[in-house]
Amino acid sequence: MLEELKKLVCTENKALPKNGLVLWTSGNVSARDPETGFVVIKPSGIHFEDLTPEKMIVVDLDGAVIDGELKPSVDTESHLYVYRECPDVFGITHTHSPYATAFSIIGEALPIYTTTSAAVFGNAIPISEIAAVGEKAIGAEITRCYQETRCPAILLKNHGIFTVGKSATSSLKAAVILEETAQSVYFARTMNPTIQPLNQEYVTEVYDFYQNHYGQ
Amino acid sequence: MLEELKKLVCTENKALPKNGLVLWTSGNVSARDPETGFVVIKPSGIHFEDLTPEKMIVVDLDGAVIDGELKPSVDTESHLYVYRECPDVFGITHTHSPYATAFSIIGEALPIYTTTSAAVFGNAIPISEIAAVGEKAIGAEITRCYQETRCPAILLKNHGIFTVGKSATSSLKAAVILEETAQSVYFARTMNPTIQPLNQEYVTEVYDFYQNHYGQ
Amino acid sequence: MLEELKKLVCTENKALPKNGLVLWTSGNVSARDPETGFVVIKPSGIHFEDLTPEKMIVVDLDGAVIDGELKPSVDTESHLYVYRECPDVFGITHTHSPYATAFSIIGEALPIYTTTSAAVFGNAIPISEIAAVGEKAIGAEITRCYQETRCPAILLKNHGIFTVGKSATSSLKAAVILEETAQSVYFARTMNPTIQPLNQEYVTEVYDFYQNHYGQ
Amino acid sequence: MLEELKKLVCTENKALPKNGLVLWTSGNVSARDPETGFVVIKPSGIHFEDLTPEKMIVVDLDGAVIDGELKPSVDTESHLYVYRECPDVFGITHTHSPYATAFSIIGEALPIYTTTSAAVFGNAIPISEIAAVGEKAIGAEITRCYQETRCPAILLKNHGIFTVGKSATSSLKAAVILEETAQSVYFARTMNPTIQPLNQEYVTEVYDFYQNHYGQ
Repeated sequence: MLEELKKLVCTENKALPKNGLVLWTSGNVSARDPETGFVVIKPSGIHFEDLTPEKMIVVDLDGAVIDGELKPSVDTESHLYVYRECPDVFGITHTHSPYATAFSIIGEALPIYTTTSAAVFGNAIPISEIAAVGEKAIGAEITRCYQETRCPAILLKNHGIFTVGKSATSSLKAAVILEETAQSVYFARTMNPTIQPLNQEYVTEVYDFYQNHYGQ
Repeated sequence: MLEELKKLVCTENKALPKNGLVLWTSGNVSARDPETGFVVIKPSGIHFEDLTPEKMIVVDLDGAVIDGELKPSVDTESHLYVYRECPDVFGITHTHSPYATAFSIIGEALPIYTTTSAAVFGNAIPISEIAAVGEKAIGAEITRCYQETRCPAILLKNHGIFTVGKSATSSLKAAVILEETAQSVYFARTMNPTIQPLNQEYVTEVYDFYQNHYGQ
Repeated sequence: MLEELKKLVCTENKALPKNGLVLWTSGNVSARDPETGFVVIKPSGIHFEDLTPEKMIVVDLDGAVIDGELKPSVDTESHLYVYRECPDVFGITHTHSPYATAFSIIGEALPIYTTTSAAVFGNAIPISEIAAVGEKAIGAEITRCYQETRCPAILLKNHGIFTVGKSATSSLKAAVILEETAQSVYFARTMNPTIQPLNQEYVTEVYDFYQNHYGQ
Repeated sequence: MLEELKKLVCTENKALPKNGLVLWTSGNVSARDPETGFVVIKPSGIHFEDLTPEKMIVVDLDGAVIDGELKPSVDTESHLYVYRECPDVFGITHTHSPYATAFSIIGEALPIYTTTSAAVFGNAIPISEIAAVGEKAIGAEITRCYQETRCPAILLKNHGIFTVGKSATSSLKAAVILEETAQSVYFARTMNPTIQPLNQEYVTEVYDFYQNHYGQ
């Protein structure tokens, strides 16, 4: 079942190490099927190079395994929490990408310093509160931050990052651009700690412009 | 049409991720054909690994698509502006490579600290003003900086970098060397913020020497 | 003999450069066979890409070569010291991975700042004393640190890192996660030198939770 | 002629990008044939992936091309100067590897902070004076630094690094370990600028120990 979505989710999970966002088996991409409402996610603790579409797990919104022989990602409950609470979200990516995670450790929102991050995020990337142990607490923090800011990327305090989108690919793109922007901002800030972000009016203008012009 | 130039532009676009200059679909290389005056550029929002010579787009200097089925890069207007205003430019590369972009964020010209950057750039890499939203404003800033300094690389304020050259390959080389020099200077400056650049007399001597000695 | 274990040790040694933990021929992974007590380790000074299962060396706990035609790793004596003194250790990884080695140079234990390192390490990663020259002194320092802290990763002062585990794979995973956490903490600390680690109560809660939930 | 040495020099040149030491066409490895005294070096301005043993250039110690159809590396004169003046040198590597080049920019010798760099270098890596423009001035500075310190690695002020050895491979190994150690020391120093290097007595003890124990 959901063969096309399994194939896509598998491809986007494999794109995580290809884009330098994950090591070992950390990190995952999931997608929600608009028709059935089921969620496709990667299995737990499997190396990315060993993933195949057949190994993807299909779960319902309560976490019951609908299809697949392996145990789903340990982060499944976090993803499901967000899908249940945010009906506009159809793809989620979670990583510990190193530069963005550094911002999650210092516990500061990441302001917008470049036109690319303005175009993709539209406003400063929010930092969550530290989540209580357990997947539901993480899901609740992500949901709260997303609903308050509508920013597709969230820095999860002392943990890593979550990005959401209208598809698995869209959330993956946000995760890639987030790490890229975190990297450049890190370099800039360690050369000059007093740099000022772009003003919000300019950020909004860039965001509106690119949302209407990019891609095929 | 322009099969050889499409092949070259495709190869040089694929060289962007190979040299660590781009992630996702950001960044692009174009070239102007000296005979027809047409410009070959990459299509918008396509992954670098999926590019083929046949997918390259041919446009005229006003942006009309002459050949190709996809939408050209969202940055096409910036490239065309530079080609129209700078008759000596036959290749342009645009990236958000992370170390050079950090200098574009702090908003400082990047002085010459190494013989390699002296040989390739000849003087400090200029920083533009922040461009108004839209591709023509970007093209105008690049053109102004290039015409004022004749430096083949420009740091575009809070955005990324543009490099120009007498061919696509020449602009790509400048983009690679710019990121390499930005990386070493970043490391040096974060160890010792008071380092002094090479004096301009020495830089010019190195530039003149290598312009006449390198390559086959 | 020990064909399966040789294959595993070969694979995990090759995983060192794949995960960015080693350059040239530095670094090694070994495993102890639970039945015979013999240890399988990589040969000395061979490039990782040239390793094959047949080239792995089998030694007894006193260092006598039981099987294999090449000289075993120069670090063999350190590994054997730890195996002799720590009966719960069945895999050891040694690297000079750059971010973790930076902490070994500044000579400070690496506190826990992220949930991932809490889940894998359970407490701050200890820093050894500087070891006298020679492999036995290194083995003794690793053993002392491991027995005092039960942390599966040790920063070896002015040298690099050792990780231990119940298998070669488990020690390799600890080495990968150690470098990942060292990288993020380095970025965080150079942006804000006063960041505070997670409190130990929270770290222990995370550790206990993940030890029981992760993987297939 | 010198087919085996051409093959080796080609392989070790291709190892430069594989080990992250070079971008584009910068950097080169050469070797001197002990019998004929001829030097094999890479051609100028050719991409590393396009190098083949047949494209390597054989020159005599005065720079006359003995064999090969392409122009030799623009750095050939520097290499030859060192071979002429240092009869114990049979391999030379030159790169602009980014972390080591940062030390060449700040203009400080790189002290020994780790056992690995103690084992390979034996004492602090010297920094040259800035060389006058031209290849002979570079060769003279390298020679002076090597003869004064006997250290197989030299930081060339505001330029990059040269390493020498008893073979191409040995100089390449020194270049790899130099970049690795520069990286870790950079990270350590930007966390704690007051770290102290290992004392020379300990460094010498490590150097003597490893010169006699490593490899097959």
